[in-house]
Amino acid sequence: MADCLFCSIISGEVAGQVVLETDDVVGFLDARPVFKGHTLLVPREHVVTLPDLPDHLRDPFLAAGQRLAAAMVSGLDAQGSFVAMNNTVSQSVAHLHMHVVPRTKGDGLRGFFWPRTKYADGEAADYAARIREALDD
Amino acid sequence: MADCLFCSIISGEVAGQVVLETDDVVGFLDARPVFKGHTLLVPREHVVTLPDLPDHLRDPFLAAGQRLAAAMVSGLDAQGSFVAMNNTVSQSVAHLHMHVVPRTKGDGLRGFFWPRTKYADGEAADYAARIREALDD
Repeated sequence: MADCLFCSIISGEVAGQVVLETDDVVGFLDARPVFKGHTLLVPREHVVTLPDLPDHLRDPFLAAGQRLAAAMVSGLDAQGSFVAMNNTVSQSVAHLHMHVVPRTKGDGLRGFFWPRTKYADGEAADYAARIREALDD
Repeated sequence: MADCLFCSIISGEVAGQVVLETDDVVGFLDARPVFKGHTLLVPREHVVTLPDLPDHLRDPFLAAGQRLAAAMVSGLDAQGSFVAMNNTVSQSVAHLHMHVVPRTKGDGLRGFFWPRTKYADGEAADYAARIREALDD
């Protein structure tokens, strides 16, 4: 897609530190890593968010994510990995990308998941019902 | 697996607000949500990290993640979603789980991805080479 940075990296028009290429996906270093080795995995096909990923690309996309998560540990001496996708909100480039970030204990990455909130009585059941209804649509 | 909280929720031994069930995966509300509706998606089979997920579960796992990400928007009036997996480091329960969190602009979620670091000259190429070698192993 014209004017998409990641499509330009996929095509080679913009230089990237490519670490993985298959028929379906490309992985390259994030130029501004959370930790060094932080990789972005993208489908070659321009899709914007995770729900947009076509059925036939699910397996190759997640398989490559598994390989990259394992490579953070085996190749970079990390103890684990953080794998994440922002859809629409906080999504800096409108081409689906999976962040694969090497993690080590005590690396200081601020917990994304804090602070947490709480449900009032009955509220969780209500939220669950709304999600179930949306899934049934 | 004995003593696994998520296996206990899957089996029904521990109550959970279940939103999605298939032959392969279960989705239920996180009891301490980042934002209300925050769902955890797990394979029924007890595997610890993303690289451990068996090949035949990749498609059903990611397909359910797509449906949940879409349901955050259609069911909860969110504008997008955050989808993430912690492998080993920061992984609170040792059963693979995909967080699917509803997002809205200005919701105050602290950027997990900041601060970013930088590569010195030549360092990015070195990191890329190490990851490529690990992938080839």
